[in-house]
Amino acid sequence: MSDSRPIGVFDSGLGGLTVVRELLRLMPGERVAYLGDTARCPYGGRSDEAIRLFARQDADFLMKRDIKMLVVACNTVSSVGLDALRTSADDIPVIGVVVPGAKAAVLRTAEKKVGVIGTRATVRADSYTKAIHDLDQSVIVYGQACSLFVPIVEEGLADHDVARVAAQHYLQRLVHLGIDCLILGCTHYPLMMEVIQETVSTRIQLIDSALWTAKEAQDILAAMNLLSPHKAGGLETSTFFVTDLTPTFRETASAFLGTSLPNAEKVSLDELAPDDSKKSTFQ
Amino acid sequence: MSDSRPIGVFDSGLGGLTVVRELLRLMPGERVAYLGDTARCPYGGRSDEAIRLFARQDADFLMKRDIKMLVVACNTVSSVGLDALRTSADDIPVIGVVVPGAKAAVLRTAEKKVGVIGTRATVRADSYTKAIHDLDQSVIVYGQACSLFVPIVEEGLADHDVARVAAQHYLQRLVHLGIDCLILGCTHYPLMMEVIQETVSTRIQLIDSALWTAKEAQDILAAMNLLSPHKAGGLETSTFFVTDLTPTFRETASAFLGTSLPNAEKVSLDELAPDDSKKSTFQ
Repeated sequence: MSDSRPIGVFDSGLGGLTVVRELLRLMPGERVAYLGDTARCPYGGRSDEAIRLFARQDADFLMKRDIKMLVVACNTVSSVGLDALRTSADDIPVIGVVVPGAKAAVLRTAEKKVGVIGTRATVRADSYTKAIHDLDQSVIVYGQACSLFVPIVEEGLADHDVARVAAQHYLQRLVHLGIDCLILGCTHYPLMMEVIQETVSTRIQLIDSALWTAKEAQDILAAMNLLSPHKAGGLETSTFFVTDLTPTFRETASAFLGTSLPNAEKVSLDELAPDDSKKSTFQ
Repeated sequence: MSDSRPIGVFDSGLGGLTVVRELLRLMPGERVAYLGDTARCPYGGRSDEAIRLFARQDADFLMKRDIKMLVVACNTVSSVGLDALRTSADDIPVIGVVVPGAKAAVLRTAEKKVGVIGTRATVRADSYTKAIHDLDQSVIVYGQACSLFVPIVEEGLADHDVARVAAQHYLQRLVHLGIDCLILGCTHYPLMMEVIQETVSTRIQLIDSALWTAKEAQDILAAMNLLSPHKAGGLETSTFFVTDLTPTFRETASAFLGTSLPNAEKVSLDELAPDDSKKSTFQ
């Protein structure tokens, strides 16, 4: 059996397109249905309750589009709300970006000291520590919220002095703690890779979850015999939805995708939170 | 006639509390009903359509609470969506922060060259230029979006080197253009006042709209004979609503208010966008 349905991917905004890029690079026959909640991003500073509510609405929207797998490309949602999404996903596999990143870190660290950078909510949830300790209790994990990295990347200043000063501010402590491995626990951070690497020195390996998440998705689809039967999938056959056509969204999308977004459709928040779903998700 | 109903004030988040502070300082007998849309802030990078929709929902929520005046404490909404709110406000006065700030700048500039800094949406709408030209066509206005200032203030780094480097990046051009007056066109920016002043030199006067907006509110209430008959109003008799109780909201609120928030109630987005209002506001 093979399955030509799309892989559903969502993120609070456009950073999750880094995961789409890796998915389509590894599996050029697949197509993706992507949702970016650009009307309400960023999620990283909001309460767990708000994050879970928005995540549920995002997931419900994609589930209705007959997807064969749900990839939560947002570190914040993967950290705070993945279990709840799995409960409601019925029969399709749901994966986040935290476990693949954690696996990679456990395999890479020699000193058994790993740093994790992410949004406030990701660091507060301590999700990477839990995922790493499931594999190896002896690894010490240090978390650091880097709230300015997302706006710096969105502003196109990833290579500017403002990025360098912010990186110094956030990362010095982790370097002093002796980590040898640093997980980029937010899809925006790979765009600041150079400045981050220069700040922490080349001794410390950086781990970008996007590649490992895409690989995990491929392995699960292969195991379930759900890979696409088609040779040609990719960007042109994929569909992209956003909740707000912000003035800069095309430019930002290209930065994450590495190429232009072929199409994008606006979804109203109404459609994302229809009356019947709201009743079950609001407490 | 006098009127003991509250003054309604809303903002995309908590920055509008600077306006509340000035309102209650000038009019200690008044009470305020404040709404901060902390589940969907910041508005400044979103499309005009999204900004107008959210603003309409914020305003509708306050209108239902029997307010005698609506103060839009958000520069982005004041720039993009004020006219639409006025049309639907029936019989209560609606004021924004742009016109009071523009008046102050026209009165202050000797060189007739004014700079305006704000969010992307505020600068794109060119609202300060229009308001200034209504008063004096000969004043030249230069706009500059400073998208990183809001997250820097929210991160508590208003006095850090990262604020200095960002200020240099955004403000150098305005200084070279010979402005003698700079409007802080976002309620967050007064918290970066020192770094901004140091960057542009003391020759350039900074204008904070909060004081001038509060004064305008007082003048209009006095003219309409709607000032409160009470001697004691203030914070304790005011009510504060937010759409998300974010982990840092109390701390952030104190920074803007200059004192602790006495109370805060969470409003669900459901209540903000009830089914009947959605039908009329969504296109």
